[in-house]
Amino acid sequence: MREKQLTGWRARGQVIIYEADTRAGQFFDLALIASIVASVLVVMMDSVGEIRARHGDTLHALEWFFTIVFTIEYAFRLVCIGQPLRYARSFFGIVDLLGFLPTYLSLFIPGSQYLLTFRVLRLLRIFRVLKLAKYVSEARFLTQALRASRRKIFVFLYTVLTTVVVLGSLMYVIEGEASGFTSIPRSVYWAIVTLTTVGYGDISPQGPLGQTLAAIIMIMGYAIIAVPTGIVTAEMAFQANVSTESCPQCSGEGHDVDAKHCKYCGAEL
Amino acid sequence: MREKQLTGWRARGQVIIYEADTRAGQFFDLALIASIVASVLVVMMDSVGEIRARHGDTLHALEWFFTIVFTIEYAFRLVCIGQPLRYARSFFGIVDLLGFLPTYLSLFIPGSQYLLTFRVLRLLRIFRVLKLAKYVSEARFLTQALRASRRKIFVFLYTVLTTVVVLGSLMYVIEGEASGFTSIPRSVYWAIVTLTTVGYGDISPQGPLGQTLAAIIMIMGYAIIAVPTGIVTAEMAFQANVSTESCPQCSGEGHDVDAKHCKYCGAEL
Amino acid sequence: MREKQLTGWRARGQVIIYEADTRAGQFFDLALIASIVASVLVVMMDSVGEIRARHGDTLHALEWFFTIVFTIEYAFRLVCIGQPLRYARSFFGIVDLLGFLPTYLSLFIPGSQYLLTFRVLRLLRIFRVLKLAKYVSEARFLTQALRASRRKIFVFLYTVLTTVVVLGSLMYVIEGEASGFTSIPRSVYWAIVTLTTVGYGDISPQGPLGQTLAAIIMIMGYAIIAVPTGIVTAEMAFQANVSTESCPQCSGEGHDVDAKHCKYCGAEL
Amino acid sequence: MREKQLTGWRARGQVIIYEADTRAGQFFDLALIASIVASVLVVMMDSVGEIRARHGDTLHALEWFFTIVFTIEYAFRLVCIGQPLRYARSFFGIVDLLGFLPTYLSLFIPGSQYLLTFRVLRLLRIFRVLKLAKYVSEARFLTQALRASRRKIFVFLYTVLTTVVVLGSLMYVIEGEASGFTSIPRSVYWAIVTLTTVGYGDISPQGPLGQTLAAIIMIMGYAIIAVPTGIVTAEMAFQANVSTESCPQCSGEGHDVDAKHCKYCGAEL
Repeated sequence: MREKQLTGWRARGQVIIYEADTRAGQFFDLALIASIVASVLVVMMDSVGEIRARHGDTLHALEWFFTIVFTIEYAFRLVCIGQPLRYARSFFGIVDLLGFLPTYLSLFIPGSQYLLTFRVLRLLRIFRVLKLAKYVSEARFLTQALRASRRKIFVFLYTVLTTVVVLGSLMYVIEGEASGFTSIPRSVYWAIVTLTTVGYGDISPQGPLGQTLAAIIMIMGYAIIAVPTGIVTAEMAFQANVSTESCPQCSGEGHDVDAKHCKYCGAEL
Repeated sequence: MREKQLTGWRARGQVIIYEADTRAGQFFDLALIASIVASVLVVMMDSVGEIRARHGDTLHALEWFFTIVFTIEYAFRLVCIGQPLRYARSFFGIVDLLGFLPTYLSLFIPGSQYLLTFRVLRLLRIFRVLKLAKYVSEARFLTQALRASRRKIFVFLYTVLTTVVVLGSLMYVIEGEASGFTSIPRSVYWAIVTLTTVGYGDISPQGPLGQTLAAIIMIMGYAIIAVPTGIVTAEMAFQANVSTESCPQCSGEGHDVDAKHCKYCGAEL
Repeated sequence: MREKQLTGWRARGQVIIYEADTRAGQFFDLALIASIVASVLVVMMDSVGEIRARHGDTLHALEWFFTIVFTIEYAFRLVCIGQPLRYARSFFGIVDLLGFLPTYLSLFIPGSQYLLTFRVLRLLRIFRVLKLAKYVSEARFLTQALRASRRKIFVFLYTVLTTVVVLGSLMYVIEGEASGFTSIPRSVYWAIVTLTTVGYGDISPQGPLGQTLAAIIMIMGYAIIAVPTGIVTAEMAFQANVSTESCPQCSGEGHDVDAKHCKYCGAEL
Repeated sequence: MREKQLTGWRARGQVIIYEADTRAGQFFDLALIASIVASVLVVMMDSVGEIRARHGDTLHALEWFFTIVFTIEYAFRLVCIGQPLRYARSFFGIVDLLGFLPTYLSLFIPGSQYLLTFRVLRLLRIFRVLKLAKYVSEARFLTQALRASRRKIFVFLYTVLTTVVVLGSLMYVIEGEASGFTSIPRSVYWAIVTLTTVGYGDISPQGPLGQTLAAIIMIMGYAIIAVPTGIVTAEMAFQANVSTESCPQCSGEGHDVDAKHCKYCGAEL
């Protein structure tokens, strides 16, 4: 399917909506970010009992205002692009749709209060704007470093998961019902709370044996955080700022990304 | 003892069970992982009072199903290998055995409810599958980095241990019985909870002197986590720059990626 | 506006107050640090009910002593500098003013107890002394590493913020009023407390689904701390290898320590 | 004062006690470590009410046994060294003395129960044994990395301290007496508990403004832990395994510590 070449106002709209190079495009992006943040704040405030009791009508009106704005925006996005279907089925297309659909659905489905919570997903839409702007290379750097180390992180996470299941089960045997370790899943939950150093304190061991094991889990969690940190750091240090180019004259390597001349012999790269 | 060369169906079985290169071997591995995860979930759900009360019979039946499956698998592993005894005495051989033995023992030993918890060790068996697959080099990288830095980590851990014992004892003297610091071991437990930034809050200092010391321990714990992280990261960054090539003359290893000559004997690489 | 050349005692005063090279200047800096620390301790002790009840008069007298000292110092700073207005409007000029103004204001505005808390901002003044002394290059190193990675950190922080809003809203739907997740803002607050591994325990999930989601948030928080750490570490390791030399031909900066030629114009360094 | 050359049994004693090269010296070290660990365990168990009630006499007897052993060891150390006074005044000499003196003093001073807690300092004595053994280079590596980055860490810690004082004071103004923020020192204590992600939960903000500020402190604490980690890691990566030697033939640098030949040209180093 060849991409359709848009003309006239639809071409202008495409530049404004999907690109960030023009002044109008930048203004559109800023207005979009402001609307998203404001609308999410409305959703959040609407969930607070006291605020809803006092300003419920205002919040309701604002919510419908943003819903209509996002609906119009969605329509424009469909119109001002060569392949509307491909956009509608893309990740951001679905996120855009989820940003206003729940409000309409709440008219027809009674008691759909929780459905409305989906609207906080609007926050994801800001990532698209970031994608356009100068943050793209930064985001790509982070994603690349994480992707390159995903297998190491998987091995690490599986080890952590096995550890918490085995140690949590052991605590279930040692501490038993009395101290709140009422089942293996609950004990595993406690082991995760402890190993990650969150430490709610709603469940905590009481006997000396349980406390000793807990202390071992804590020190373990304190020490092994070094592993994901080491993985990601080593990967980032490796990726950061080193060009893969080698000098055409002396074949020296390890030049900076912004280098124009070889740092060893001065030849042009 | 020479390794016996297996033939016929036993040779085919060996390829399926112990290797991951064939389609049948990969299917076997996937089925094994699924069985292990499912059986551990059964063990965990069986420990939850409500679930056992309602679905106890189903869980019991599933548990026996998995026990018999793992018993048959164990038998096949013994038959389809050249040196059955060596396998039975290996780490994974014992883990395999511990995966189904407790269920049989529970028939003869009454009140062996806690014995059954051993069955969560089945999770360790998945590491064998990972070992076969593409994760082997990742796992080796992590293990090597940790092994290379084990002495530094030992020095660090001993320092941490001394710190918590000395500071915990000091808190026992300062705070005393009133705030829950009823004995030195309990105070040391509190010091570990605090230094590792877990912070349950079941024991916490009340007096100004105790809170000041606690604040010092917290900032200390917050800062010295940099030490294990630094150790492991530096080690990983170092290993990432180490070539896997060995010298053709003296077979020395550990050359830098940019090395052109062996650092031990000077021969060209 | 040309900088006025001070003469006589005002020139001597400028050297003492604004520089740290002379013996008198170093003595002035030490006395200043001691006064600041002592005066902040007075402010802090004055807020403790018991201490104020017993030593209120002494603290009051000490507070006025330090206020007058800082007022005189401020006057001297204005007199002993070529451009008094520029100093008064600078960051440190305003901090200096805020260090003693609230005490005078409290005479005229009744019930201005909380205004007095501003006086702890005096602590910021010590950074000026550090700026003069040998810590300047260390502080610049830290600031530079943070500034160079500010975009990556922004992308990371926005991702974290989106995560806590989405997951917090999800918890609000799952757990509901019963367990303390009474509104979305409160649930987001809980998500932040959990993701950052602080874990107060004042709000914690009770149902199995909520605890599972909480466990996922914890492990996520435990793992993604690797990201800011990796960013800052890679940046610092990079800066530590950057020479402070600039190119004699194009005055470009940021050359590697082992560079022999300018990476921008190729001239010999 | 020239070091006296010991002869006869005193020379043999010196080798056994102060060195770790001989079989007897290694046995002495192991016995010492075992005695220290056992005696500290006795001190710790003696502080637990129940254990003291039941096994008080045994613990008392063991304590006196270890005290006499350490006294004899101290005497031997004095006799078997060329400069006894220098040893007695050294750090480890004082630690050795503090290891048994409190027990004797408790005979004369009634109610000196807390004095006895000093005996846990015996744990510090094990560092001497580590110093002798193969851990010396590891410990030196860690100490050097920390010493090299001490100024950066100082700047970081002062920034953290200023932050917690300013933010703690702000919370005192915002939250006030009702939620437990009864004084500035207590609020600062809370800010430290939060920033370091310990999070006891004994004091926690209740109002929306307080919770917002708390959330900011948490994310701040979560992010800035990257700073000490980055400092120490960059320092360690820099120090680790890189020789300062350059090749005499091609003047290439960056050789490993264990390199015998230049990695670029193969010349002997």
